[in-house]
Amino acid sequence: MSTALVKPVLYSYFRSSCSWRVRIALALKGIAYDQEPVNLLKDGGQQFSTEFQVVNPMQQVPALKIDGIILSQSLAIIQYLEETRPNPRLLPQDLKKRAQARMISDHIVSGIQPLQNLTFLKQVGGEKLEWAQRYITCGFKALERILQHTAGRYCIGDEVSMADLCLVPQVYNAERFKVDLAPYPTITRINKALLELEAFQVSHPCRQPDTPAELRA
Amino acid sequence: MSTALVKPVLYSYFRSSCSWRVRIALALKGIAYDQEPVNLLKDGGQQFSTEFQVVNPMQQVPALKIDGIILSQSLAIIQYLEETRPNPRLLPQDLKKRAQARMISDHIVSGIQPLQNLTFLKQVGGEKLEWAQRYITCGFKALERILQHTAGRYCIGDEVSMADLCLVPQVYNAERFKVDLAPYPTITRINKALLELEAFQVSHPCRQPDTPAELRA
Repeated sequence: MSTALVKPVLYSYFRSSCSWRVRIALALKGIAYDQEPVNLLKDGGQQFSTEFQVVNPMQQVPALKIDGIILSQSLAIIQYLEETRPNPRLLPQDLKKRAQARMISDHIVSGIQPLQNLTFLKQVGGEKLEWAQRYITCGFKALERILQHTAGRYCIGDEVSMADLCLVPQVYNAERFKVDLAPYPTITRINKALLELEAFQVSHPCRQPDTPAELRA
Repeated sequence: MSTALVKPVLYSYFRSSCSWRVRIALALKGIAYDQEPVNLLKDGGQQFSTEFQVVNPMQQVPALKIDGIILSQSLAIIQYLEETRPNPRLLPQDLKKRAQARMISDHIVSGIQPLQNLTFLKQVGGEKLEWAQRYITCGFKALERILQHTAGRYCIGDEVSMADLCLVPQVYNAERFKVDLAPYPTITRINKALLELEAFQVSHPCRQPDTPAELRA
């Protein structure tokens, strides 16, 4: 069977912010896919199973089986989708704006998220909430300043971009960790505007196949 | 003056692995630039100064002033260079290989480096060496497996790509943290092949304007 006829399979966890980024991209681009839930807490973390290690040696979600290959790392996946299924685009046409979209994405993906994710927090010990808050606050302070130069209705002007796919799940994490968002009016405003879009709603952690009943909305 | 006539300025620190990635890209593409050293240790970290915060609100190196804008985040910078100065290319032409180059880059940039960088290690407390070794080892284990599928002479086949620009500085960090590299023959072999290339040599931490005399080579 041609690989184009096989539905992509997304290995994900409802509450993983990295998985959510990819779900938004798939929704925006109208790509039908199946989900294979990987529970990051059950059985000591199903991502560490021998079975899943074959899918993704990095032992993380998301991973996407698509076009005969398996990809991991959310931004690599999103940019592969962008290059193979360009409509609607998730990176601006203007090269400087593209760079800014990538810069904001990287700031969240490598500058904030790794220092507040659950697997990591387990190993830090001490006051997890305080630790997560420190890194999110520090990252958001910089992000707020950058957005004041780049944002329109969304992170980069008035078009949804990859940066927005990173922003919303990170704000969701900030809320889970009870970060005070009052000092970040631009972040808060953009997050609210994005959550009005259907692609951000259907991909939300509260609406996934593996969302526990008590967290559904 | 046209921005194209102004030499780019790289804000960097000789030993920062993220700065080194960008220096390799600039060298490979033959882009002349000036360096503005930012000492990450002196004065409590010059990246935290009010002056530098105007350059990069993220308070990190590298940052690149180019074409009338200032960019930060190494992969965003490298991909901006790739899109504006495409020769020689740093992302393969084949879309699946491009995705793999980005996947390996992201694995190093967001999966390994943030959990072993100096600013972060200062805050972890306890046994810094052990902590850094744990994350590098875990990341290299996955990387070794992935490279067995993607590598030729370099990370992706026989062409130098963005993934290689991330690999060499990360191996340099691993050596600083005394990680035993014997279990990673593919990583070690590729690193050695890359270090034979001039662009990796001129950009090396031991040959920068801000390299202290005792570390020069």
